[in-house]
Amino acid sequence: MTLSDLVHQTGEWLRGSGPHGEIVMSARVRLARNLSQAPFPQWATPPQRAEVLKRAVEGVNGSAFLKGSMVLELKGLSELDRLFLVERHLISREHATGGFSGAASASGSHATANSTDSRAVVVSDREIVSLMVNEEDHLRLQVLQSGFNLQEAWVILNRMEEELERKLPYAFSAEWGYLTACPTNVGTGMRASTMLHLPCLVMTKQINRVLHAITKLGLTARGLYGEGTEATGNFFQLSNQVSLGISEEEILDNLERLIKQVIEQEEAARKALLNQSREALEDRIWRAYGTLKSAHLITSNETVELLSLVRLGVDLGVIPTLERGRVNQLFIQTQPAHLQKLEGRPLNPSERDARRAKLLRDSL
Amino acid sequence: MTLSDLVHQTGEWLRGSGPHGEIVMSARVRLARNLSQAPFPQWATPPQRAEVLKRAVEGVNGSAFLKGSMVLELKGLSELDRLFLVERHLISREHATGGFSGAASASGSHATANSTDSRAVVVSDREIVSLMVNEEDHLRLQVLQSGFNLQEAWVILNRMEEELERKLPYAFSAEWGYLTACPTNVGTGMRASTMLHLPCLVMTKQINRVLHAITKLGLTARGLYGEGTEATGNFFQLSNQVSLGISEEEILDNLERLIKQVIEQEEAARKALLNQSREALEDRIWRAYGTLKSAHLITSNETVELLSLVRLGVDLGVIPTLERGRVNQLFIQTQPAHLQKLEGRPLNPSERDARRAKLLRDSL
Repeated sequence: MTLSDLVHQTGEWLRGSGPHGEIVMSARVRLARNLSQAPFPQWATPPQRAEVLKRAVEGVNGSAFLKGSMVLELKGLSELDRLFLVERHLISREHATGGFSGAASASGSHATANSTDSRAVVVSDREIVSLMVNEEDHLRLQVLQSGFNLQEAWVILNRMEEELERKLPYAFSAEWGYLTACPTNVGTGMRASTMLHLPCLVMTKQINRVLHAITKLGLTARGLYGEGTEATGNFFQLSNQVSLGISEEEILDNLERLIKQVIEQEEAARKALLNQSREALEDRIWRAYGTLKSAHLITSNETVELLSLVRLGVDLGVIPTLERGRVNQLFIQTQPAHLQKLEGRPLNPSERDARRAKLLRDSL
Repeated sequence: MTLSDLVHQTGEWLRGSGPHGEIVMSARVRLARNLSQAPFPQWATPPQRAEVLKRAVEGVNGSAFLKGSMVLELKGLSELDRLFLVERHLISREHATGGFSGAASASGSHATANSTDSRAVVVSDREIVSLMVNEEDHLRLQVLQSGFNLQEAWVILNRMEEELERKLPYAFSAEWGYLTACPTNVGTGMRASTMLHLPCLVMTKQINRVLHAITKLGLTARGLYGEGTEATGNFFQLSNQVSLGISEEEILDNLERLIKQVIEQEEAARKALLNQSREALEDRIWRAYGTLKSAHLITSNETVELLSLVRLGVDLGVIPTLERGRVNQLFIQTQPAHLQKLEGRPLNPSERDARRAKLLRDSL
């Protein structure tokens, strides 16, 4: 498998199936792990980082689960290909640009700020599993699932983590748990999140109240592309804040319980809107569909906003001819790097707006 | 023929053909005439107004040209039917409500302000000719033609006026010409106008300059529904200001000459926009089309604005599947009274928005 094979493939997490698929786009669990006896990436010398990558690849090849996965060294990838991987949620923005996120961007660093040296990503079949090497931590293991499937994601992730451990002894403290470059990840090294589509909580202006309550109860809310990104398209990524002093199962149970409440509130908002102003809601949905089907120039932002309404239309049965998975896929395929990979050549922003509009017209 | 027969009929002036049909929606010429020996409508007693109506109907029946036309007394029509006639440009708003426009709304009136007593309209086959009785003047004769057909309209109107004169001696002064209720119409009693569609002069922000110049040269600019109405849908009704001290032919020649210049400027603006930003223009046109084809609730105003872009799309060949005449017809059929006549019952505003959206979806 090569990177280009991904272009026409739909990642597992975009299928649109799974529990509560009409509200929960995807569930994601990731673990931060570091190899013992090796400095964290930002404090490592280039040879030390290269050694970590070498050992990580050996670990991957020795894992029954990850065997045959695609290993991509970022240094060998164009800027476009790296952005493509970000858009697919396979690597972080920081990994793509060679920067470091979080508290790890401190002094004493050996690596230059923009180094993509010895950075890599391992992508499994159907993009269920990805593993970033030499991001903020030596290893960032992630499992993405479609729908509200946190437990299933955790089962897969857990198995993979154990397999890797046989070859790669992790930095672990009996007192603190797994050690990580940034103290916010110490302990379990776990971050679990769900991507929720909450258009009706936004329309009924309840979203701020809900997010405020959720934050008070220990969750973090982010946008479609993680930390620091805005909530476009009514998508909200909710994740646990704390990874220390609590077990993995407790993190997941707590998150699941709170997310369920958010789901119920979105369901109630959908019902209320349908009861009180079905015509106006259907009008908004069909207008969004009509614009996507007709525009000849359209920006990425407008596309996400309109696709959000179309996804709601599909989920409410207003647009019966369209499949949720297809709409999910369009969210990703209309992103800048995806458009350019589909076209097979670099496109300037206005060429992208035209190409994006054509893709949408042809697809809807 | 009855009023209901008009509902599914397309008036001659909406056909979308005729010279410069891509810019000139219609040409209209009207003459104000009053019967000699009878006071102007606003100063007439009810019996005097009734007598004028009786004589006017005799005149119509004696005219070869108008024989068989529909004669509608406004008193016998519902408010809806009267609005329907306004929307079709067959009668004025003042005629529909029983008011008086212009300087005639002075003191000394015998008629009550809202009287529709003895008011009528005569409508010929295909709505080419209409004749208002007891509006501001005893007779207001109008001919509407599709496209830039002022001369043709004038030939028809002239013939009709002469035919009527045989039975109905007009109030005429050798010094002033035809006498009218409002001094602005004295002389020829003629008002000639064209309805121009000028979307690209609006888009390129040249419209104010053009209208300013036109006004200085003796023309008046009005909106889609005449005096006091705003220019919605990029439609501008340009007409002569002066009717006194100048012959009918001079009025028409002067108007034609100036309108030709406006047409040329709109043509230049269209060419420039196509050259400089074809993609953006096509995008606006297709989005308008997409919204009209998808909306489930739409106001009359938004409809006119979007249909304006669709008409431009048809005229530029961007939307090749649609006929100009059909778009013209939709401008009228989506008006409130037309919707209710089509539906066969009164509709409240939000019912109209839904019915209008359905009509547009079904038609486009």
